[in-house]
Amino acid sequence: MHDDTQTLAHARIGILGLGLMGGSLALALRGRVAYLLGIERQVVARQMALRQGIVDEALEELTAGAPPLDLLVLATPLRVILDTLGRLPVLRPGGCAVVDLGSTKRAVVAAMSALPEAFAAVGGHPMCGKETAGLAAADGDLYRGQTFVLCRVPRPAPQAAAESLALALVAAIGARPLWLDAADHDRLVAAVSHLPAVVAAALMRGATDERQWTVSASGFRDAARLAGSDPRMMLDILLTNREAVLAALRDYQTDLAGFAAALEREDAAALAEWLAAAQVAHAAYRRYKSGEHLM
Amino acid sequence: MHDDTQTLAHARIGILGLGLMGGSLALALRGRVAYLLGIERQVVARQMALRQGIVDEALEELTAGAPPLDLLVLATPLRVILDTLGRLPVLRPGGCAVVDLGSTKRAVVAAMSALPEAFAAVGGHPMCGKETAGLAAADGDLYRGQTFVLCRVPRPAPQAAAESLALALVAAIGARPLWLDAADHDRLVAAVSHLPAVVAAALMRGATDERQWTVSASGFRDAARLAGSDPRMMLDILLTNREAVLAALRDYQTDLAGFAAALEREDAAALAEWLAAAQVAHAAYRRYKSGEHLM
Repeated sequence: MHDDTQTLAHARIGILGLGLMGGSLALALRGRVAYLLGIERQVVARQMALRQGIVDEALEELTAGAPPLDLLVLATPLRVILDTLGRLPVLRPGGCAVVDLGSTKRAVVAAMSALPEAFAAVGGHPMCGKETAGLAAADGDLYRGQTFVLCRVPRPAPQAAAESLALALVAAIGARPLWLDAADHDRLVAAVSHLPAVVAAALMRGATDERQWTVSASGFRDAARLAGSDPRMMLDILLTNREAVLAALRDYQTDLAGFAAALEREDAAALAEWLAAAQVAHAAYRRYKSGEHLM
Repeated sequence: MHDDTQTLAHARIGILGLGLMGGSLALALRGRVAYLLGIERQVVARQMALRQGIVDEALEELTAGAPPLDLLVLATPLRVILDTLGRLPVLRPGGCAVVDLGSTKRAVVAAMSALPEAFAAVGGHPMCGKETAGLAAADGDLYRGQTFVLCRVPRPAPQAAAESLALALVAAIGARPLWLDAADHDRLVAAVSHLPAVVAAALMRGATDERQWTVSASGFRDAARLAGSDPRMMLDILLTNREAVLAALRDYQTDLAGFAAALEREDAAALAEWLAAAQVAHAAYRRYKSGEHLM
């Protein structure tokens, strides 16, 4: 921990994207790093960040002429992360360490592995967020106690520069690092994050009548909540995690079809078993999550 | 309202089933009715109800020898409601008013319409609840501000005795009556209550691995919450609302299949439109629900 604090205290960090995630990261790093540069296209956010001392300096764009950085954090939408990684050799000719905050990892890690040797990279995915987007919603405690996934980038040389800076950053913001293989990560979040968002959207699409809303309560509210996700963000996620999402979706559709067939033929025993398996899994999941803070 | 209070103040009410719903109803009616009889099979609940003065008297079973009642409230699981309605002419030879609290209405209202003339009946469904079952979870405020659906029973004679007692009861517990046709009710709740529970169960069944839980957050927690529903209660609901649930499920499966096909062929435009429609509907739903207390 002492090493992490020292590592970071001398670091010059650039955050590309001062939205909810980038802005919260800046707030959490304030006072713990040598220099914080914010790169943000929207002038209102840029000005707010400067006015509130969230960053030391703010630019509209990352260019080769921007100040030197030890670590660049990519906190933009996924498609911009991938685009930035492609242009990074031109934007940072001297190289630097790079980490991202994107919701899917395989595509990002693949793009990172194509970077020239002057770069050291590690994939990142903090498992937290809020429904409200934008810098105004930023919260320095957003990451506290949350899991922050890190994915090694397969490269000839070790990526220690990026990995140690990323670990120091994760510690500084109060999050807990979890090393995962990028493809594993994408399969896991397909099941517990991406498929649930698709399923919630489909539920909402089937319930657009006020008469239905009148008789709805907290059950529908929670089941449909993810339908409010930003469509553009979801599109990026789906297109960069397409295979894992399709695999999870196919299994889901098959299971639902089995349920529908059992209901069609009024097979109470099969239905009872199907429902019981869900409830038993849910109870185990709740026990696991309630003990998580002890792990 | 004055009439409702007077109507209830002289009423002798029996509540069959002192679980969460029946127990909460008893607590909410305490002091507002002439006499409250609790009928409950489980001795622990029966004793708790007497000890805490939740009811004036408690029986293990409803028999012909039980005290006279103006209104009988059926607060048991659905299958017991249907069974009780079948035996009611024997249990209450003099007849009485009847209302239920069951989650589906068509089957219940059909059974009510077959009652002898000495009975007046109305279907009921309070749109509230908790995940915890049992009398220990009972809460006199459970119904306050909540919608309480009432369904007329098609019978030759008007069912005023049951309908006015039910309305008085709904007012006394602080709920808001909503008259619906029984079949309409069942179609509406299929979409916003029953299908969501099935969908949540299927999500949970596809996420039984601790590695998945480790990277899950509030998105999965909310999307899967209904998977913790009591399987026996869900089975009763599905079997008594089978057609409406199958219809909602078929539409849902068709919509998901269209989504899967679009993702398969990487049709960003179709995916974007699909997701946007969900998000727009969700925003309208949120606006509607936030203004509901004003209606």
